[in-house]
Amino acid sequence: MGATVKAMLQQEPGAPLEWTDAADPVAGHGEVVVDVVATAVNRADVMQAAGHYPPPLGEPEIIGLECSGTIVHIGDGVEGWAVGDEVCALLGGGGYAEQVAVPAGQLLPVPRGVDVEAAAALPEAVCTVWAGIRDTPPATMASMALVHGGSGGIGTMAVQVLTARGYRVAATASERHHQLVQMLGAEVAVDYRSEDFVAAVHAATEGHGAELIIDVVGADYFDRNLAALAPDGTMTVIATQGGREARVDLLRLMQRRATLRAMTLRARPRHGRGSKAEVIEQVRAAVWPLIEEGLVAPVIGAKLRLQHANEAHAMMTGGEAPGGKILLVR
Amino acid sequence: MGATVKAMLQQEPGAPLEWTDAADPVAGHGEVVVDVVATAVNRADVMQAAGHYPPPLGEPEIIGLECSGTIVHIGDGVEGWAVGDEVCALLGGGGYAEQVAVPAGQLLPVPRGVDVEAAAALPEAVCTVWAGIRDTPPATMASMALVHGGSGGIGTMAVQVLTARGYRVAATASERHHQLVQMLGAEVAVDYRSEDFVAAVHAATEGHGAELIIDVVGADYFDRNLAALAPDGTMTVIATQGGREARVDLLRLMQRRATLRAMTLRARPRHGRGSKAEVIEQVRAAVWPLIEEGLVAPVIGAKLRLQHANEAHAMMTGGEAPGGKILLVR
Repeated sequence: MGATVKAMLQQEPGAPLEWTDAADPVAGHGEVVVDVVATAVNRADVMQAAGHYPPPLGEPEIIGLECSGTIVHIGDGVEGWAVGDEVCALLGGGGYAEQVAVPAGQLLPVPRGVDVEAAAALPEAVCTVWAGIRDTPPATMASMALVHGGSGGIGTMAVQVLTARGYRVAATASERHHQLVQMLGAEVAVDYRSEDFVAAVHAATEGHGAELIIDVVGADYFDRNLAALAPDGTMTVIATQGGREARVDLLRLMQRRATLRAMTLRARPRHGRGSKAEVIEQVRAAVWPLIEEGLVAPVIGAKLRLQHANEAHAMMTGGEAPGGKILLVR
Repeated sequence: MGATVKAMLQQEPGAPLEWTDAADPVAGHGEVVVDVVATAVNRADVMQAAGHYPPPLGEPEIIGLECSGTIVHIGDGVEGWAVGDEVCALLGGGGYAEQVAVPAGQLLPVPRGVDVEAAAALPEAVCTVWAGIRDTPPATMASMALVHGGSGGIGTMAVQVLTARGYRVAATASERHHQLVQMLGAEVAVDYRSEDFVAAVHAATEGHGAELIIDVVGADYFDRNLAALAPDGTMTVIATQGGREARVDLLRLMQRRATLRAMTLRARPRHGRGSKAEVIEQVRAAVWPLIEEGLVAPVIGAKLRLQHANEAHAMMTGGEAPGGKILLVR
């Protein structure tokens, strides 16, 4: 054992990530160690690197919420997985490293038709989208879903999964990504800079509104989302890039019979109700088949070496982020 | 035809209700006319009488959102009901009258074991509670539900239905009503004037919180409700007696993985998704059996003549409202 594994680590919060010797991950009870082929960038990584988003209790200090690779060690009490299996995984942290310990409940097989490297782009996006839509009523022919940030890592997945599940999809995105979101299934692409998404949704639904809204903006969009929501509709907030403090008119929510859901993946416990393992199990049953049928695919907008994670972070937060996920490969 | 029916009407919004000749209700297509035995007071009635809550488009000006009685006319296109049937009904309005026209989809039979008069206390409370809980996950052994306003018309029904469906129930109520809410099934009664309901819920659940909160207060309780809510829990707002404008920290909602639902019964359409008819149909299947088994009963705190509706309204808004519903009888 000892320090044979390298990872992207910081001297202190806010400092650049550096390729550094790290402690070898050990497969604890119920865990495996994955030799990492690729990880992918999430907005939480950028916040964590800036010192604004410490890891949940008990999770590694090393950044990185998902990875793909090969199982190289199996801990006690793990069933159904073997050394050599190609997997992707939802992580509590630790993905920006050559190896990472993963609770077996957070592993997924690399889906047929997807290469092991690209599979690193799946776990966070698929699990976030699934957790955000699993409790919503089934789509009818006319049901429209509105996806904000349609060209982002979550957005590109949401557009595909909702289309595969029978929704008509409207997606907000900057104009240069309209072709991308339409190729992924969106019927309506809305330029959030120059167009009114409320009007666009009402125009596409004869004034009915969107049955489901997947939101990453938060406070800035709250009132407009409510105006775009159909009666009995559901708005799911999965990020607050436009502010966390919303003024909510509860009487207006009542009159819309609105359901507001809000969730994060990162803080979910490992086991039990609402856990990462629960989401993973459902994703394997409900979304993996859509991937293996070719209805849903990882969307990779850029691929950098893991050692260039700082540049990848700058790419995500800059004005010209690529569409889809940014992959970091060994 | 002509003016043979009397109703409690106002000269103008804000004026007292007076026992006045009214136009005979006519059973339109898909409607029946019910000869009213009893109606019951709802908070919306008081607001409507004060001129603050005009009826939804197409609904009668006459106040009154529920009634019981006997069918005396059947319109075209009504199946499954006959003249002479004893019923109770959810109304868009018109209950404070000797007769009222009702869409057949809003009728329920008087449940076995309940007399026709008392059945007037059921439709609003049962439908509101059902619409508020129907989409929530089933209770486990340890699941706790928190019911605010536990001694009110909605609250007394919520405590019973949630208890019958396997929840442990905590209810806020003034101290003189603690015995009532406990008799109805509440394990924990919290005096909202002198006790902290957040602490009470956490004490009863080993810090886990309430899986479900039925709230009638709104803005004033919003933050405390969120503090009392278990991870993955649902808060359902059905009234805003403590203010409608809440400041909501969306990031805190995300970390709780909270679901906020808000709804009203009165503005629901007659037919289709989310309609009164849909709620009625589900209530008949899911809650009527609980009533007929004796697990759930109408709770009637006071009974006045319909001509004394003004006094009944004063009773509801005064500091010493009776526990349960206020019935208005012919």
